[in-house]
Amino acid sequence: MSLRAALRNKHAVTGLFSQLSSCSSHVRVRGSPVLVTQQRKSSTTPRIKVEFNQSTGVAIMHMQSPPVNSLSLDFLTEFCISVEKLEMDKSCRGLIITSSQPKVFSAGLDIMEMYGKSPERCGEFWRAVQEMWLKLYGSNMAIIAAVNGSSPAGGCLIAMTADYRIMADNPRYSIGLNETQLGIVAPFWFKDTMVNTVGHRCSEMALQIGLLYNPSEALRIGLVDQLVPEDQVLSTATQTMTKWLAIPDHARQLTKTMMRKPTIDKLTSSRETDIRHFVSFITKDSIQKSLAMYLEMLKKRKG
Amino acid sequence: MSLRAALRNKHAVTGLFSQLSSCSSHVRVRGSPVLVTQQRKSSTTPRIKVEFNQSTGVAIMHMQSPPVNSLSLDFLTEFCISVEKLEMDKSCRGLIITSSQPKVFSAGLDIMEMYGKSPERCGEFWRAVQEMWLKLYGSNMAIIAAVNGSSPAGGCLIAMTADYRIMADNPRYSIGLNETQLGIVAPFWFKDTMVNTVGHRCSEMALQIGLLYNPSEALRIGLVDQLVPEDQVLSTATQTMTKWLAIPDHARQLTKTMMRKPTIDKLTSSRETDIRHFVSFITKDSIQKSLAMYLEMLKKRKG
Amino acid sequence: MSLRAALRNKHAVTGLFSQLSSCSSHVRVRGSPVLVTQQRKSSTTPRIKVEFNQSTGVAIMHMQSPPVNSLSLDFLTEFCISVEKLEMDKSCRGLIITSSQPKVFSAGLDIMEMYGKSPERCGEFWRAVQEMWLKLYGSNMAIIAAVNGSSPAGGCLIAMTADYRIMADNPRYSIGLNETQLGIVAPFWFKDTMVNTVGHRCSEMALQIGLLYNPSEALRIGLVDQLVPEDQVLSTATQTMTKWLAIPDHARQLTKTMMRKPTIDKLTSSRETDIRHFVSFITKDSIQKSLAMYLEMLKKRKG
Repeated sequence: MSLRAALRNKHAVTGLFSQLSSCSSHVRVRGSPVLVTQQRKSSTTPRIKVEFNQSTGVAIMHMQSPPVNSLSLDFLTEFCISVEKLEMDKSCRGLIITSSQPKVFSAGLDIMEMYGKSPERCGEFWRAVQEMWLKLYGSNMAIIAAVNGSSPAGGCLIAMTADYRIMADNPRYSIGLNETQLGIVAPFWFKDTMVNTVGHRCSEMALQIGLLYNPSEALRIGLVDQLVPEDQVLSTATQTMTKWLAIPDHARQLTKTMMRKPTIDKLTSSRETDIRHFVSFITKDSIQKSLAMYLEMLKKRKG
Repeated sequence: MSLRAALRNKHAVTGLFSQLSSCSSHVRVRGSPVLVTQQRKSSTTPRIKVEFNQSTGVAIMHMQSPPVNSLSLDFLTEFCISVEKLEMDKSCRGLIITSSQPKVFSAGLDIMEMYGKSPERCGEFWRAVQEMWLKLYGSNMAIIAAVNGSSPAGGCLIAMTADYRIMADNPRYSIGLNETQLGIVAPFWFKDTMVNTVGHRCSEMALQIGLLYNPSEALRIGLVDQLVPEDQVLSTATQTMTKWLAIPDHARQLTKTMMRKPTIDKLTSSRETDIRHFVSFITKDSIQKSLAMYLEMLKKRKG
Repeated sequence: MSLRAALRNKHAVTGLFSQLSSCSSHVRVRGSPVLVTQQRKSSTTPRIKVEFNQSTGVAIMHMQSPPVNSLSLDFLTEFCISVEKLEMDKSCRGLIITSSQPKVFSAGLDIMEMYGKSPERCGEFWRAVQEMWLKLYGSNMAIIAAVNGSSPAGGCLIAMTADYRIMADNPRYSIGLNETQLGIVAPFWFKDTMVNTVGHRCSEMALQIGLLYNPSEALRIGLVDQLVPEDQVLSTATQTMTKWLAIPDHARQLTKTMMRKPTIDKLTSSRETDIRHFVSFITKDSIQKSLAMYLEMLKKRKG
């Protein structure tokens, strides 16, 4: 395990700010195999843009919350609503998740949601994080993550809930659960998802020292499944999806449920405890101090 | 993970027909290190031929049910009787399983046992499949799979119950649990066996899209342990067995039990439920229709 | 899996004798980044030498029980006392474990503690083995194993309890749980530790036939994390430790606990049963005979 190389990436983008607030936009492309690209730059720009191609049964979710698709409460709410709509639409069989922001897939949980907030608000935030994971990890759709940028912490979590991960082969990008570098701890269901993806040993080391892997390392340990040039991430995802959708849905879905249900049940059966645990941890003085120092460091780096 | 390469193999032999019916033949070679080869081509040819070499304590089971060693109820019955005889013979310490059919190890469960059959018959068939797995996965003998041909679905299951897998290095052969490609679902104990062999992530992907791996890919993910030229599969298995039998039986057996008992207990404690579940699934109209289409496709391909 | 290559190492040093008896020596280096080396060759030489560097918060434990750091009851007692002292010292954040003996890290459990001893004594010995594992695997310190020699059986167990393993890249060294080669069986918590490190399949094969891996093979399967030239093992461990200690202790410790607690709880909740099981197994006539033969073989090889 090249610890040295993996640690080189530790100064990646992580948990920045998202301030816009609006609703997600669903673009439905009827009877056309051509994907529509829509760019709205006004203050009402939704954080999530969904393109659904009815002829293929595949939806593409673009995360477009500047600057780095941080997972704020508003973002998570939009995200969950979008996924739920697609889940309930029987004609939607496959989902591709990607980013419209340059260089970043998602920077993970929005630190501003955890810093200086009331316990109630922290609890509401955490419930939304849980909800996103439950919806994605338990989805009946085939999900492919088109990881076209860095993907630390919660961004990595989103990628790991997918059925297949394609990453841009750009050595400046990184992916991993780096929570401990901020002085916080990934909860058990982040951990379970990682163990299911890369195994116990890899997770133990990566989670303890908050490792961020560059694309080649991520491929080697199995954190992503395939690397392609940056401009081919989305097209490769689309091609790969046709292979997943060649399998009868009921057989694929039953198999997916068989693999993931025990992990999902663990959170479902202890959701409130997990929220209480998070709130009590994150509102501790020592943890708030850690977050303050981290925010200070981020400001200096930008200044 | 080279999904593309793995999917290239999807048109492998799978679940064909076996119609012969007879008893297995046990050939006992006393005090001789030379293996006997016996070929009977009459209608009474047993589906399983066993050569037991008393001087080495090693038995070789040849699956010889034309054309592709499909796991019919009759085949499974013979197979289980043969394994049980060897298991009860204290002088038999090691078992090598191989195929006498060209190009195929075993094509897996016989679809004809699942198509248009009564629930009672389906239940009887499934109990035999369970029995085979319980006998092999829980065997006290050291078992080596000499995989000298393609090994889809139930064929892959047999290989995975072994303690060591040697495969012919022929790129036209493939191995994997491809049930979903037929619209059916591998049961939890097939899944458990695969997770124990190649880990959670690999199993999740392979089982969802019914991946068949060529030998090099199978070696890379750990689905087989060693590749050798086709004509050396059996001799390598024999050589490897001497290393396994160099270990005191009681220590090896206790260790094997420690590793496998939890997985075996899961099926033992829910056998009837598993049968009911299988019967109710396989007799569904939609599933029967899937199987009909698959059989139609097979006929056309042969025609 | 190169079974052949792995088996080539089977004649490695294993379970020899340790007869010296004395107390461990803790050397405290206050305010100095320089490590002190202390060599006492008298009959009062402690089996464990601890160097603690207060300025870095890192302790180095040298196992120095000639000839091969066998884990005798006396050795284990000293070892546990040393670890406990460091654990209770808040200023000690990291622990490096290495050997002062040439060519061997630790030869594992001292066979003389299991041969011809009373059940009471065997039980006492086994409790000490459990204690060592519980202390190491559950430690709050970041632990790095600097494996500068062969490390069979209990030696491999010590290495596996660490958070990171650096091994000397010397092809004559080997590492693995080779208990079955002696006719004995690794207990479930040895097995659990190995499964957590290299996965289920690898453990199943390695434990059944008592595989010892050379350094390259150990790296390939993930039994060690890094290979370096023999004279750089300790310096690399020291450098690596700074990366582990860059992570806030509380976050790293909570994460480590989350990963390891289920495995530790299994032994904690069945400690007495495990001792009874060991004592009843090891005092069997057949097992005592196996050990006698093994000791005889060792004597001949030395003679």
